[in-house]
Amino acid sequence: QDIDKLTGPFGSPPTVPRPRPGCKSYKMESSPCGHCLIINNMEFKPESALRNRRGSNIDCEKLETRFKAINFIFEVKENLKESQIKQEMSALSKKDHSQYDCCVVIVLSHGTEVRHSGLPGAIYGVDGKHVTVHDLTLYLNGQNCPSLQEKPKLFFIQACGGDERDTGFEVSSDEIDARASLPTQSDILVSYSTFPGYVSWRDTQAGSWYLETLERILKENAATDDLCSMLVMVNHHVSQNCAKGLYKQMPFSFNLLRKLLYFQTST
Amino acid sequence: QDIDKLTGPFGSPPTVPRPRPGCKSYKMESSPCGHCLIINNMEFKPESALRNRRGSNIDCEKLETRFKAINFIFEVKENLKESQIKQEMSALSKKDHSQYDCCVVIVLSHGTEVRHSGLPGAIYGVDGKHVTVHDLTLYLNGQNCPSLQEKPKLFFIQACGGDERDTGFEVSSDEIDARASLPTQSDILVSYSTFPGYVSWRDTQAGSWYLETLERILKENAATDDLCSMLVMVNHHVSQNCAKGLYKQMPFSFNLLRKLLYFQTST
Repeated sequence: QDIDKLTGPFGSPPTVPRPRPGCKSYKMESSPCGHCLIINNMEFKPESALRNRRGSNIDCEKLETRFKAINFIFEVKENLKESQIKQEMSALSKKDHSQYDCCVVIVLSHGTEVRHSGLPGAIYGVDGKHVTVHDLTLYLNGQNCPSLQEKPKLFFIQACGGDERDTGFEVSSDEIDARASLPTQSDILVSYSTFPGYVSWRDTQAGSWYLETLERILKENAATDDLCSMLVMVNHHVSQNCAKGLYKQMPFSFNLLRKLLYFQTST
Repeated sequence: QDIDKLTGPFGSPPTVPRPRPGCKSYKMESSPCGHCLIINNMEFKPESALRNRRGSNIDCEKLETRFKAINFIFEVKENLKESQIKQEMSALSKKDHSQYDCCVVIVLSHGTEVRHSGLPGAIYGVDGKHVTVHDLTLYLNGQNCPSLQEKPKLFFIQACGGDERDTGFEVSSDEIDARASLPTQSDILVSYSTFPGYVSWRDTQAGSWYLETLERILKENAATDDLCSMLVMVNHHVSQNCAKGLYKQMPFSFNLLRKLLYFQTST
């Protein structure tokens, strides 16, 4: 595979924002920065009893542009069954990440609430079987993926957390989505589109609230702000949205990072 | 109760760090800033089969100094049973917080892993009955505590998350502690001393790793850095510790904040 074609606009050395004094930040200097795997589940098997996720391709295209712009090797896998999700995660964990500084996994699917003792949530394969977010994170932890030790492993989960809806005021959207997930060791961050147990909203034209906002915040702020601060901004903007004049959504993150994280940006 | 006596060194208007451009931050201008309730469970009833938590008073004294220094009304409740923990949380939620900008709850106790669908963990009353961290956060959410709506509600949980131990390299400590908890709506942050399922370490002389580090980071960095950045620093420092030359500890936070949070500091 031609790496150069995948690295986006980075011919010259990338710009990395300078951390504030007193805060350590992760090294993010390799070019490309690392792998970004997207699992985009749109078409579900009849036996799953799950609806197709219209609008998900819009999210995916935006994310492709954005993660290439911040210098990641972007790879999309579509319509994976539970066993295939595990295969892809296993393949990712077996890659040699020695030359990279970071790894990103983004899951766009339906999700569900699962009873658990650690990280919340699970995401569905197109066959209607689920993988817990906790298990997703295990593939990349320091034990299972030594070449990512001490490097940030980021998970972005666009999926429902369950069936509960949070009431609010204004706007409208027409499809329900789901949220999920959790980390298991250090240097892991999992960003969830919605609070455990609650639905996550997706507009079939504009894409999901969470990913649309994430993409925009990355675009506008990656040159100056660290990831945690940007996720706080995502929380702010998504929390202002409202579906069907009634329902609210609150993203959150589960943070095991040990340093600030600034993405590369091109000038 | 004499409020002035409780507000620490703030006679003159406090200094609040300026947020970075592009990041909204919570208003933190009231003096005092808000209530800080500490539940310090040290002596457990025989029927609980839980050991007394030696060294917890050291944590508590440090936190008192620190939270008074950042202009909170500090109140300690010691050795509470499960029902009393709920009573105190209920009393806190019924207070009128209109004139304040923030609310902090710190729990020092034994903890346990509980299967759940939302926020992980639970903390023990001295009678050996537990309260889930999820339930703790419910008392202060926007619905149950209207005068804290849109204001940051911070939970710091020093308690074990379970019995698993994480192996590592160096240092020593001699007592096991516990971690726990979770938020339920926006503007909530829960900072846990250790990963779900794992023990949390406490030195009977120096206090617990997590709280000792938290106190120091607040002391050194509150004037310049926001809370999320400081918690990343706490993760960094605690993750470098090692118990009995073998065991590691990884704190984490569950973040539903919508803005950056800068504490007040006196100049």
